[in-house]
Amino acid sequence: MEDHNSNSMMHNCKFEVPEIIFGRGMLNQVGPCARRLGGRKIFLVSDKGLFDAGWVDVAMRSLLEAGLEFIYYDNVTPNPKDHEVHDGFKEYISHGADVIVGLGGGSAMDAAKAIAILVANGGRIQDFEGHDKITRPLPPLVLCPTTCGTGSDVSQFAIINDTQRRCKITIMSRCVAPDISLTDPDTLATLPDEFVGTTATDALSHAMEAFFSVASTTLTDVHAIKALRLLTSSLSAAVHQRRPSDLENLSRASLHAGMAFSNSLLGIVHALAHPIGGLYDANHGSINAILLPEVIRYDIPVVTDKLQELAWGLGHRANGDISAAGEKIQETLDSLLEASGAPSSLRSIGVQRQDLPELARRALNDICIVTSPREADEGDLLRILERAY
Amino acid sequence: MEDHNSNSMMHNCKFEVPEIIFGRGMLNQVGPCARRLGGRKIFLVSDKGLFDAGWVDVAMRSLLEAGLEFIYYDNVTPNPKDHEVHDGFKEYISHGADVIVGLGGGSAMDAAKAIAILVANGGRIQDFEGHDKITRPLPPLVLCPTTCGTGSDVSQFAIINDTQRRCKITIMSRCVAPDISLTDPDTLATLPDEFVGTTATDALSHAMEAFFSVASTTLTDVHAIKALRLLTSSLSAAVHQRRPSDLENLSRASLHAGMAFSNSLLGIVHALAHPIGGLYDANHGSINAILLPEVIRYDIPVVTDKLQELAWGLGHRANGDISAAGEKIQETLDSLLEASGAPSSLRSIGVQRQDLPELARRALNDICIVTSPREADEGDLLRILERAY
Repeated sequence: MEDHNSNSMMHNCKFEVPEIIFGRGMLNQVGPCARRLGGRKIFLVSDKGLFDAGWVDVAMRSLLEAGLEFIYYDNVTPNPKDHEVHDGFKEYISHGADVIVGLGGGSAMDAAKAIAILVANGGRIQDFEGHDKITRPLPPLVLCPTTCGTGSDVSQFAIINDTQRRCKITIMSRCVAPDISLTDPDTLATLPDEFVGTTATDALSHAMEAFFSVASTTLTDVHAIKALRLLTSSLSAAVHQRRPSDLENLSRASLHAGMAFSNSLLGIVHALAHPIGGLYDANHGSINAILLPEVIRYDIPVVTDKLQELAWGLGHRANGDISAAGEKIQETLDSLLEASGAPSSLRSIGVQRQDLPELARRALNDICIVTSPREADEGDLLRILERAY
Repeated sequence: MEDHNSNSMMHNCKFEVPEIIFGRGMLNQVGPCARRLGGRKIFLVSDKGLFDAGWVDVAMRSLLEAGLEFIYYDNVTPNPKDHEVHDGFKEYISHGADVIVGLGGGSAMDAAKAIAILVANGGRIQDFEGHDKITRPLPPLVLCPTTCGTGSDVSQFAIINDTQRRCKITIMSRCVAPDISLTDPDTLATLPDEFVGTTATDALSHAMEAFFSVASTTLTDVHAIKALRLLTSSLSAAVHQRRPSDLENLSRASLHAGMAFSNSLLGIVHALAHPIGGLYDANHGSINAILLPEVIRYDIPVVTDKLQELAWGLGHRANGDISAAGEKIQETLDSLLEASGAPSSLRSIGVQRQDLPELARRALNDICIVTSPREADEGDLLRILERAY
């Protein structure tokens, strides 16, 4: 039995997750959840795609059946923008809402979080960039993910696009974790094929970066490994056959990965993905998929004491051979990325080569770089970008 | 790769854990924690052994340095009694305390929880026996475990001895989970050898029963398996050599097991251990150690679809052979129990043979039996008791 990690991870840790509800058909519990948090007039944040797919209707009916009023807000786009958040804030105030429900992918949920920040603290959303800038507690939040990647429903992060600076700002605070994370995996049934793959690669990046983070502990490692196992068993089948049980496993993988990274934080993949997403408004999961193999290659020399634990978690009988463990991990990663159908170069998603130095510079200021297992300067980050180009 | 459980555990689930802080030397954070929860006058529940070992002093100094007053209450004995809880409640009220800190094993922490129940709800502690009988939220609670078994610091349970009926009452409610679980594994350094072994067998029972519970999910399984792995790697060394890193692993195992069972609940071991503990005031970990092999033997025929997942978690390359997986689990269990030094018969801890039928009858009414993977009537329970006698 290999339990390398139990002795290597001796430092102090904190672990926090919201109340979690998970299960097929559970979206009809959003009303009772919002009511239990003291809500009377709910601010429901979602998007047009989910409205057309019928899921917003399920949530609305549940709210009504729980005797609650609601205001529906769907002015949210992928990579949610500062002005969408400010408009939502004004709507919330003008209607006197009291509880926020976010239903959707990372965009709707992060917009819901950002609106909650402004409701409690005023100001501009840019004022809260960085670590622990929020001083007053948010109104109650229920977040219902409908993709298999973001982890926003459990995380202490919110990512918003600053449209003037054309960059993503990362807000990190325990306050932005919701009160309740409510996942109904049935909602994946209407998620387009392409987004099943790209959001699952986001969960893959969360799990990998969380596992190798300098802030990882046994409390986060068990969830990171479980996420990777679920992805390994179900990603390919979910993308190609869309069986409900495989889609549920992807939902579950996203939840486990979210529980891991919210507490152990991330690394270079996300530190680079945020400025790229800010500059190009590109799909976050696709960016991660492109960067992940290069960053893992960069990290591996300094995380050798954790390779066997992970290889073992992925079903490999490691027997103390570290390089075999590293190969097993790379293989698993490659086959998952292939199964996801995600793109494999920055060029293919429209990144301009001349922007790479600026992207490397911006990544140095992203909070995610703090927990990277291997330090990186601007030159290191630029080399990773060039390899992924 | 075997991931049997991911497909067999498809039902809806809830998962809740308090904020967790874990690390050597962290007991000096109890003051800032109590302060953050709004405390000014802290009701500190502990016991004489911990006072003599110096740990109460560490907590007191931390409270004072955080600018907090405190009232110290140590009228708590193993298997905490109803009258100790009622006396503590009166002390709390007469001093106008506002936050409760429980420092100790399951006894001090369960007493702290029970005092908190009475502070908020009045009445007798017996009024809250069973599931969800608490109507008003408790004052803020910080629980600091100093053994490696109870899991009370994360759990939704409190167990109190009804001295008139000579039975343990089980109180189960989300309200009794604390606000903060704060573990300082250094406190194990002063725990007598005997209690290292017996409280670790309590964690062992929690992990095993949680894993096989009908309410288990992937969210609880990962923690149950991690607890078992940590026990396997460190129990024997912790008991015999008392290395700090092994003791820390036992602390960590207890925390993982607590996160599992608080959400998946338990089974026949605990359903039987509660009436035995109530009737004989015997050590809870020892009772569990005696019952566990018999209960696992009873359960195994109905949990075959989970055996390989667990055997794999314990380092066994299962290859689809269910009976080999079962053997691996029994072997691991036997060697852990042997390493713990726990007793192996009910007779040896003073249980009277003529009481067995009454104990079986009482176990049928314990809430823990509800999640047993295999149903059991009075005759089944009596047979388990007789085999363990």
